[in-house]
Amino acid sequence: MSAVSATDNRIHAVYEFDGIEDAEQVALGLVVEETIEYPRELVADQWLRDEVIGRVEDVSCAENGRQVAHVTYPVEDVGGEIPQLLSMLFGNCSLWPGVRLVDVAFPSALLAMFPGPRFGVAGVRNMTGAIDRPLLATAIKPLGSSTDVLASMAYELAAGGIDVIKDDQGLANQSYAPFEQRVAHVASAIRTANEQFGTHAIYAPCISGPTEQLDHRVEFALTQGAAGLMVLPGIAGFDVIRYLASRDDVNVPILAHPSMLGAFTASSHHGIAPNLIYGTLPRLAGADLTIFPHAGGRFSFPLEDCAAISSACSSELGIFSAILPAPGGGMTMGRVAEVSQFYGPDVALLVGGDLHRGDLRRNAERFRDLAERAMNTRAHDLSAPSS
Amino acid sequence: MSAVSATDNRIHAVYEFDGIEDAEQVALGLVVEETIEYPRELVADQWLRDEVIGRVEDVSCAENGRQVAHVTYPVEDVGGEIPQLLSMLFGNCSLWPGVRLVDVAFPSALLAMFPGPRFGVAGVRNMTGAIDRPLLATAIKPLGSSTDVLASMAYELAAGGIDVIKDDQGLANQSYAPFEQRVAHVASAIRTANEQFGTHAIYAPCISGPTEQLDHRVEFALTQGAAGLMVLPGIAGFDVIRYLASRDDVNVPILAHPSMLGAFTASSHHGIAPNLIYGTLPRLAGADLTIFPHAGGRFSFPLEDCAAISSACSSELGIFSAILPAPGGGMTMGRVAEVSQFYGPDVALLVGGDLHRGDLRRNAERFRDLAERAMNTRAHDLSAPSS
Repeated sequence: MSAVSATDNRIHAVYEFDGIEDAEQVALGLVVEETIEYPRELVADQWLRDEVIGRVEDVSCAENGRQVAHVTYPVEDVGGEIPQLLSMLFGNCSLWPGVRLVDVAFPSALLAMFPGPRFGVAGVRNMTGAIDRPLLATAIKPLGSSTDVLASMAYELAAGGIDVIKDDQGLANQSYAPFEQRVAHVASAIRTANEQFGTHAIYAPCISGPTEQLDHRVEFALTQGAAGLMVLPGIAGFDVIRYLASRDDVNVPILAHPSMLGAFTASSHHGIAPNLIYGTLPRLAGADLTIFPHAGGRFSFPLEDCAAISSACSSELGIFSAILPAPGGGMTMGRVAEVSQFYGPDVALLVGGDLHRGDLRRNAERFRDLAERAMNTRAHDLSAPSS
Repeated sequence: MSAVSATDNRIHAVYEFDGIEDAEQVALGLVVEETIEYPRELVADQWLRDEVIGRVEDVSCAENGRQVAHVTYPVEDVGGEIPQLLSMLFGNCSLWPGVRLVDVAFPSALLAMFPGPRFGVAGVRNMTGAIDRPLLATAIKPLGSSTDVLASMAYELAAGGIDVIKDDQGLANQSYAPFEQRVAHVASAIRTANEQFGTHAIYAPCISGPTEQLDHRVEFALTQGAAGLMVLPGIAGFDVIRYLASRDDVNVPILAHPSMLGAFTASSHHGIAPNLIYGTLPRLAGADLTIFPHAGGRFSFPLEDCAAISSACSSELGIFSAILPAPGGGMTMGRVAEVSQFYGPDVALLVGGDLHRGDLRRNAERFRDLAERAMNTRAHDLSAPSS
């Protein structure tokens, strides 16, 4: 949960940076950089100086020696657009060494400019019939597989009870399994499995591609029965999520994938905190599910970051729905119990390659068993007397 | 200039990472991560293992103790799309600690899939009549100014002989100076100045905004006489540049601004090397001018990075034109001579706030004098006998 709040109708942001004696000056420079980017002393207009430039509310020194600046920006500086919001929060100061955006809070006047997640946790549960357990997510892969192989794979995964089946983020429009052919066949295979087995799997193709093909790919996917869409905001921009969430005809959940976003979180001394870039920002843009690497997989994400991302998915954000954290990145079947316990039921467990060790459908069924059992154990733990 | 070449029709990439004994394994893991993202041992198909997964060509240890892996990817893995190219080069491995993409080389088969810069150095020189000197660039600002103020400013800047006048990247669609009103009035003011003074200033509005308004903003700007367009690839995606460069009706130079891209270059141990993210990649996408922070300004960029970016703007890249490096970020009039000498004539010097200390038109004229004089001095230096 954010440590700052925006009850004064301004956008609140907290930055950490190095520096000792001139911390106040650095903070003043930062709000100038992120708003007017112009020498303050040359601004003749008193209103502009007072009302347009961000304000430094407080600067203090953290235990780790880093300076912590709490600043606020007027909502008017954003003009209601996600690109400018991002530009103001971290655009130019991404180029400053050692600056990290660690917290934000948005006033309702800003939140009201965006549609928010259309489905959220409850909506995705409703679509998949996964009411009281972690959702099960996976990707069709690997790149290089033919459409037939991917479609058969999707069929088995749906038959085995996976809730969310997405394209691997590397599946674009290669000749191996071109976008339209793949989406048509995979959507059809999943629909068939859902009908045969009474399952409710969602297929979310990756629609990040050429700019001029965005609308066509989205419309094609929906026409073919895709019941979700995956976006790579680090490559296509966060605003694409907002755009899809705003479209009345895009009545399916939106998944955000972290490709390229690791640049913001690689250093604890620079960039944007994981809970913001993988939690608050995709949720603000309107994602219903956000993928990020869970601790102990291939990407060494610390557990506390995972907890903070999960919290950002559900803590108060105006009237925006809670969304699903989807920890992945080398998750294995052997960790389903542990990870389910860590996140609780409101999670989409993303297991990829490990499902393919042996029979795919049987593994999918086992995946569901493990997730259901983890919840029962957890419920038992929580209700057990503390003797 | 790239240290690798792509004469074998594959995409070459060089990554640095930490690690000692298992460097070969890390490199093998990396090419799997960036292509199939799937356990290699589960891939039954020999063709897929041999032809789809990236190949590790060489791993060596650099003087600084970092491991250097030279890998190659098949062009077919990209499917001709910029988003997938970026995803493959650094998408998932952005989430690996300590990995940096330091070099790339693209085969002609890949380059042929993209339009490349339409104008390049020669084209922008031709439009502005700035034949044998550094180009002069600036931004209208600050955010909060009214359209009238910005239009008068643009008029003075054009009258004073500035070649490229762009929107500050924070000018989006705020009520202070809404996009359409601003673009119409500023374009008109610059046209008037050009007619009155025989100048050839280009106006490049910032067109990164809501996804669904991209086409409208571009078309509106062009209709109003904007003779350039600025994109924020770190926020809107590099593919927007490629899209604009591909459109036959967008017959104006494209400027790339580095907002948010600093996340990739903040650490010398992670991310993407500055020459790639500010040079090669925008040029590959089709930008004609690329903005980045010059050394010694507000952003502490090392000189050698600036030299490498400049080199990436003009070194061989298939048949793609050389483009203009536009160093900025706190550049002052007092540094015009030094910076001109550093880059040589093929540069767009970007001076912002400092032009506003005193009379704007006179400062613009002085800016041009300084740039012309720097070139004469340089020519003199170069032709002087080395006695």
